Amino acid sequence: MTDHSADLSVLAGLLAGSLTTDPDVLATYSLDESEHRPDGAALALVRATCVDDVVATMRFAHERGIPVIPQGARSGLSGGACAVDGCILLSVKAMDRILAVDEENKTVTVEPGIINLDLKNALRPYGLAYPPDPGSVALCSIGGNIATNAGGMCCVKYGVTREYVREITVVLADGTVTRLGHRTVKGVAGLDLTALFTGSEGTLGVIVEATLKLVPLGPDPLSALATFPSVTAAASAVSAYMRTGATPSLLEMMDGTTVGMIQDMTDFGLDATVGAVLIMQSDATTASADAEAFADIVQTHGAVDVAFADNPDDSEMLVAARRSAQTAFEHHAQSHGGGQMLDDVCVPRDRLAEFCDGITRIGKETGIQVAVIAHAGDGNTHPSVFFDNDDPASVTAGYDAFHRIMGLGLELGGTITGEHGVGALKAEWLATELDEGNRRLHRSIKDAVDPTGILNPGKMLSHL
Amino acid sequence: MTDHSADLSVLAGLLAGSLTTDPDVLATYSLDESEHRPDGAALALVRATCVDDVVATMRFAHERGIPVIPQGARSGLSGGACAVDGCILLSVKAMDRILAVDEENKTVTVEPGIINLDLKNALRPYGLAYPPDPGSVALCSIGGNIATNAGGMCCVKYGVTREYVREITVVLADGTVTRLGHRTVKGVAGLDLTALFTGSEGTLGVIVEATLKLVPLGPDPLSALATFPSVTAAASAVSAYMRTGATPSLLEMMDGTTVGMIQDMTDFGLDATVGAVLIMQSDATTASADAEAFADIVQTHGAVDVAFADNPDDSEMLVAARRSAQTAFEHHAQSHGGGQMLDDVCVPRDRLAEFCDGITRIGKETGIQVAVIAHAGDGNTHPSVFFDNDDPASVTAGYDAFHRIMGLGLELGGTITGEHGVGALKAEWLATELDEGNRRLHRSIKDAVDPTGILNPGKMLSHL
Repeated sequence: MTDHSADLSVLAGLLAGSLTTDPDVLATYSLDESEHRPDGAALALVRATCVDDVVATMRFAHERGIPVIPQGARSGLSGGACAVDGCILLSVKAMDRILAVDEENKTVTVEPGIINLDLKNALRPYGLAYPPDPGSVALCSIGGNIATNAGGMCCVKYGVTREYVREITVVLADGTVTRLGHRTVKGVAGLDLTALFTGSEGTLGVIVEATLKLVPLGPDPLSALATFPSVTAAASAVSAYMRTGATPSLLEMMDGTTVGMIQDMTDFGLDATVGAVLIMQSDATTASADAEAFADIVQTHGAVDVAFADNPDDSEMLVAARRSAQTAFEHHAQSHGGGQMLDDVCVPRDRLAEFCDGITRIGKETGIQVAVIAHAGDGNTHPSVFFDNDDPASVTAGYDAFHRIMGLGLELGGTITGEHGVGALKAEWLATELDEGNRRLHRSIKDAVDPTGILNPGKMLSHL
Repeated sequence: MTDHSADLSVLAGLLAGSLTTDPDVLATYSLDESEHRPDGAALALVRATCVDDVVATMRFAHERGIPVIPQGARSGLSGGACAVDGCILLSVKAMDRILAVDEENKTVTVEPGIINLDLKNALRPYGLAYPPDPGSVALCSIGGNIATNAGGMCCVKYGVTREYVREITVVLADGTVTRLGHRTVKGVAGLDLTALFTGSEGTLGVIVEATLKLVPLGPDPLSALATFPSVTAAASAVSAYMRTGATPSLLEMMDGTTVGMIQDMTDFGLDATVGAVLIMQSDATTASADAEAFADIVQTHGAVDVAFADNPDDSEMLVAARRSAQTAFEHHAQSHGGGQMLDDVCVPRDRLAEFCDGITRIGKETGIQVAVIAHAGDGNTHPSVFFDNDDPASVTAGYDAFHRIMGLGLELGGTITGEHGVGALKAEWLATELDEGNRRLHRSIKDAVDPTGILNPGKMLSHL
């Protein structure tokens, strides 16, 4: 490999932010929250504090053909922000200012590093809300949310990140700064490059600014929880409830295994003996009617019990339980060999029950424990596989289950990833999901936008 | 020019549909509903009746470097479907079947030629709705709607076409058939090529199938109409009403000139002496409260009168009046020299009053009559300029006003096109709206996807 160390000090001198080659720091920044482990070592970490830092870094890397891995909060679950050998890790986490709140047009303009929850909290005094709420809402950055087109629990009513991105400023592979999209409510001037870059997982450019659509802050939601003897019963209730035209602001499912793991970690007062739990929220003016309709539907679909949260604290507690699932999975994994990966398959809503049955079968056939949480109203599931990192056979079986779950999703007309992104973990599967014409389009667009291929190589587009 | 006539008969022999070179037919199919007039003549018209016809045509054209102009209902207002010299006009209008209605997952799969209103009517018995409703809803095709990312009156609540396109099948420049997107509610597997092709105005591929998201059919809306002494007063009422967080399903503005032209054509019982009219609808469960809030707001913003439509027929009549505006413009133009063009500038909502003032100024300075209708809740305006086609000075002044209105829109932070598309009429302006990095992205993506440049040349991307 070319020795870039002298050059790196030149780059460092150009930055308002900082550059480090400290091996310990690089090791930390080489990982995200996935199980993916890079093959090689990063060259340097740039902590950008302004657009010019990003421009300088990209120019530097472009001239030398050095891979660049854009990073936000590194809370991703697919390995999209992990290092590749000889790369520069380009963190925009410190670029976290709110640049403008436009109350009149209900938009906010932010730097990419701002944490989703911090943005939500800052907007509250204005009576405005930015809906997208990934599970990692307290950790994840808006730039990362845009780069992965992140989802969350509210998508069932409010949609995904893409629907809130009006305009973005990106730095291209060669350091060119360009503004994409429009600040107006509507706009069709040219190709929808804002949407193309949203969800491009750092392979086309580095997002350095975004103007986001906001909505009026809604009232506290009304919540309900229903327990079922089986996942199949819960899944069929979801399908029936959504068929009514209900517009819940949240409709989550957890299987009994998940409920057990959550209760093992923290007592949320959940019954760990149930087959599955559904949590429903409505923030509509018709919330009471929505909750009653939910109660009716679940009872005709075999619910054992239905309970309503009649105050905001109880309501928040229910969601907190659901939100703690990934932590509970990690907690469980720690005492069971450490291996844990979260699938992200989205299936047509009416195939949810069939998909869950298939997961049970895959668990049995591979001997791997699988727990399931799902944004059920969207058909977006997160089966979590557990394995023993110290036992190669278990690791193999764990990955096998993880992959077979994606295969099952595709068989049922679904997609390998509903919201977490392809990253490093699912790059091979992307090639399976897309047909040859689609793969060719991906390759040619990537080559056109990043001709030297320095932006996040070895990830999303690497197997196309 | 190469003589392709012998070859054309070979292509004709491959088609399930038909191919014609009849000059009268070609002359008709060389135009859309814009004022744009092609420089040259089309070579042939292919009326495709199946995907294979589109594939055969694209292969034929690709091998020979013949330009292809994809056409739906040719109801566009920007010249996007007009002929270029030596082109094949490729009409998919006859491909108009509904392939599947999925009630469970609330989607419909259609061929591109189906008329928007026909689709709406076909979905009604299922209790489902496809919201996007361009002014030309009774004439325009879904394929054309997707190709232009069409809007309409409902966007203020329901958003634009892009938000309803889940999956599309496209035929690429070389005849490759590929499926883009996902049928599931969510999906982030790969780049969002569905969004890239939505609004690409036939420059990247030919859409031959689409799976669209549906919503439950709502109740009949409640409507209200308010009259104002001036456009400025109406515009400020719009801004104030939207600031309240109201979610009308329609919020339209017409200036007094427009109201006069409508009444000259058909008596809708409107007062032609007013300065401006606002029409508001709500299809929410809170419709009464929405209408009352509207009445309060408009009264504090100088409304002369507010009236409610308390039954569906009256409600429909109000919208019919608004919907007839473009016809009234054409009617007016017929007796005033024939020239008429519709701008499509979208400005930030709080700049609407300022924009309307500017239009009045431009009208005075150019000596051109301008009438304004607007999807006011979105800030998306359609100023219509009138000129005398038999008077070159008037034509020049008309185009001057048309262009200056776009310039004003950009000055106010808006876009040259909110929903009609760039087409031939605004291609030069697109180069002004986009910065150099953005223009370069457009060029490189176009070159990557359509390397021989045969798809709809001389239109949207021609001046980048």
